[in-house]
Amino acid sequence: MSASETPSGESTPEAISPGRPAAPGQFNVGLLGHGTVGSAFAELLSERASHVERIAGRKPVVTGTLTTTRGSFSEILEGSDLIVELIGGIEPARAYVLAALSAGRHVITANKQLLSQHGEELFGAARASGAQLRFEAAVAGVVPVIRVLSESLAGAHIERVHGIVNGTTNFILTEMTRGSSYAQALSEAQRQGFAEADPSEDVSGRDAAAKMAILARLAFGTPVHLDQVPYEGIEHLQTDDLQYARELGLGLKLIGTAERRDGGLSVRVHPAFLYSGHPLASVSGPFNAVTVESDAITEITMSGPGAGGRQTASAVLGDLVSAMLPPAAPSPPLDPLPLVQDVESGFYIHMEVADRPGTLAAVAQVLGEEGASIKSVAQHGLGEHARLVMVIHPLAESRLREALRRIAALDFLRSTPRAIRVIEEEFM
Amino acid sequence: MSASETPSGESTPEAISPGRPAAPGQFNVGLLGHGTVGSAFAELLSERASHVERIAGRKPVVTGTLTTTRGSFSEILEGSDLIVELIGGIEPARAYVLAALSAGRHVITANKQLLSQHGEELFGAARASGAQLRFEAAVAGVVPVIRVLSESLAGAHIERVHGIVNGTTNFILTEMTRGSSYAQALSEAQRQGFAEADPSEDVSGRDAAAKMAILARLAFGTPVHLDQVPYEGIEHLQTDDLQYARELGLGLKLIGTAERRDGGLSVRVHPAFLYSGHPLASVSGPFNAVTVESDAITEITMSGPGAGGRQTASAVLGDLVSAMLPPAAPSPPLDPLPLVQDVESGFYIHMEVADRPGTLAAVAQVLGEEGASIKSVAQHGLGEHARLVMVIHPLAESRLREALRRIAALDFLRSTPRAIRVIEEEFM
Repeated sequence: MSASETPSGESTPEAISPGRPAAPGQFNVGLLGHGTVGSAFAELLSERASHVERIAGRKPVVTGTLTTTRGSFSEILEGSDLIVELIGGIEPARAYVLAALSAGRHVITANKQLLSQHGEELFGAARASGAQLRFEAAVAGVVPVIRVLSESLAGAHIERVHGIVNGTTNFILTEMTRGSSYAQALSEAQRQGFAEADPSEDVSGRDAAAKMAILARLAFGTPVHLDQVPYEGIEHLQTDDLQYARELGLGLKLIGTAERRDGGLSVRVHPAFLYSGHPLASVSGPFNAVTVESDAITEITMSGPGAGGRQTASAVLGDLVSAMLPPAAPSPPLDPLPLVQDVESGFYIHMEVADRPGTLAAVAQVLGEEGASIKSVAQHGLGEHARLVMVIHPLAESRLREALRRIAALDFLRSTPRAIRVIEEEFM
Repeated sequence: MSASETPSGESTPEAISPGRPAAPGQFNVGLLGHGTVGSAFAELLSERASHVERIAGRKPVVTGTLTTTRGSFSEILEGSDLIVELIGGIEPARAYVLAALSAGRHVITANKQLLSQHGEELFGAARASGAQLRFEAAVAGVVPVIRVLSESLAGAHIERVHGIVNGTTNFILTEMTRGSSYAQALSEAQRQGFAEADPSEDVSGRDAAAKMAILARLAFGTPVHLDQVPYEGIEHLQTDDLQYARELGLGLKLIGTAERRDGGLSVRVHPAFLYSGHPLASVSGPFNAVTVESDAITEITMSGPGAGGRQTASAVLGDLVSAMLPPAAPSPPLDPLPLVQDVESGFYIHMEVADRPGTLAAVAQVLGEEGASIKSVAQHGLGEHARLVMVIHPLAESRLREALRRIAALDFLRSTPRAIRVIEEEFM
């Protein structure tokens, strides 16, 4: 019996840790947000609560839910062992997560915006109080990339992370590969529930950029803010490029990359072609996939559904079980790497040309002067309406832009040349 | 200063926990076995020790190594915080692991034979002493399937695990798909170091069966002994079957399956055809991959190199870092499921026939009487040397065997019919 308990056996208020469960064997979960994911999580948790009790020793129960119209955050916090934040966006999510961590409560969140813009502040609050902050559901849904990077590969020297981390755009690109226009593919995605009414966060690449900022932090121990991740979307892609490139054995994906370059770290998101042997090439429809490369492991690829309320809820449940088992804390930043901007990529280049003697030679000369080496070329059509399609070996983006500017000025060019990055690696 | 220390500051023997590190900030690793994996691990650990020290607070150092000719197990145990067992086989590995766990030392092992035959005894010893037993490297090399099943999906209701868990056979089948005979493919695998001089453990399916026993235990909370896993190998496969099946859109893999069937659990290993949309269909060469299916997650696929000293060492390092961070214990068996033997599969069937009127009808009648429904049929050649190739929808193995026995007795059959399982699911 502690000194603050009265002889009658009743506890004084001081004897109760604020918000800790009265019911022995119960683990109290405060749920912030009750939209698609929040309600799917509440349902999944009640289905799996008895199973979790058997492996973790306590039964998880949602003891308070905060919606836009109901509930008091401070009361929910008071009565919870752990807070699940599924509100999304920055405020009030940020304030709630900070308050919960500072009060020593573990927090599970699926909030990529928050983590990619205020991650260090949140990680710092978790370290300061010893509470856990878990966020598997924030990136690639049920694909366990957060756990694998922060645990399985915590000791590894990672070279590169490549990810298809947005299911909406992957669905749209899959449809475009089958011949749909961008507009048709987008409306099909909306019809099937894979795209929002306002799809701009997804199709602009910004959603993927937030996720890559989070993955880069874990893989390279370097804080990366969303604002430091350049991104390009898929809105301007043309179906005929996807079809020409297919003849060259290439498939198009929206690829997030975080990799060591020139002694620093490059994090970026853009459409890129992949050869069919690449582990991400066969990921189609609304799926997500992440490939992690390191000298020691060669490469690991993980894939699965990228979204869906029940899938995201399942990732939250995995974090909940881990939080109920012994604790882990995010490590402080390790040897932060400088962020690199002007990186080399292979490129596919599409040019509408009037095909006269010397056309290819003139293009090749410009490319050669900018340091580009041509890997493959195909010509479609003849005479005034020919198309020249080529793939070049890796070249710095700044030099590619200069080459395109110079090519666009050649007198036989009939429209502005288009370029799309190509990921060159081929795997077995 | 503890009571047992002498005033001079020197400790009596009792003041030192047996085998605990004298050097503060150092984490002592006892290494059993110094073959390909053991020496790769020692090298990788020394490369990554400083990094691990920064995330885990202590520097891991190999303080003793046991080889066939050198070292004393009891001295190594005494001086270690953790034992890494990379000897392989049952004894003396089993005795050493049990002794280490009983002495409260965490153990990391890559030993699939040991875990698939004595897993419950080892898990029990770990639970009894509170020591950790980690074994990511025992299944699928660097593919983090053990961690994902035991942590990310610990709360999930898993329906099925499918795995390509033997890189040797996947390499051989990839070569056969390209036209090599089994013998040619095997010798190519041996030449490239993907197959042992005596390949029987791999090509018989026994190695994969051991790994599936381990995965089934984790996914379904049911103890499974290697002896309870029926397995078929790839030694008797014929290249022409792979080629005919390709015309039907099928690729051949050695597939391990653990799945809920008829209220129980079926665990088995056999060659099976996959349609090209299946997430395991594109896994080629010496790679491993595992797909986990559950209602809530749909499915997750993880793939990567299945073997190689440095890859296996990397999986051991991941376990080491986790062991140095807070502890986890294997949970006791949960609702063990009964093991089911006679399961349904789709089948590809190859028959050499003398093609007379009524040939297909007679085969179809036998199949129909055994409950089989035909999905697709192709005939190659004519007259006395025709081949009839078909795919049937799922049928219990016992009924398939009976159908094959009856078909073999038909007078127009020119040789024994061959059957290979087909996995029917197609994914996006």
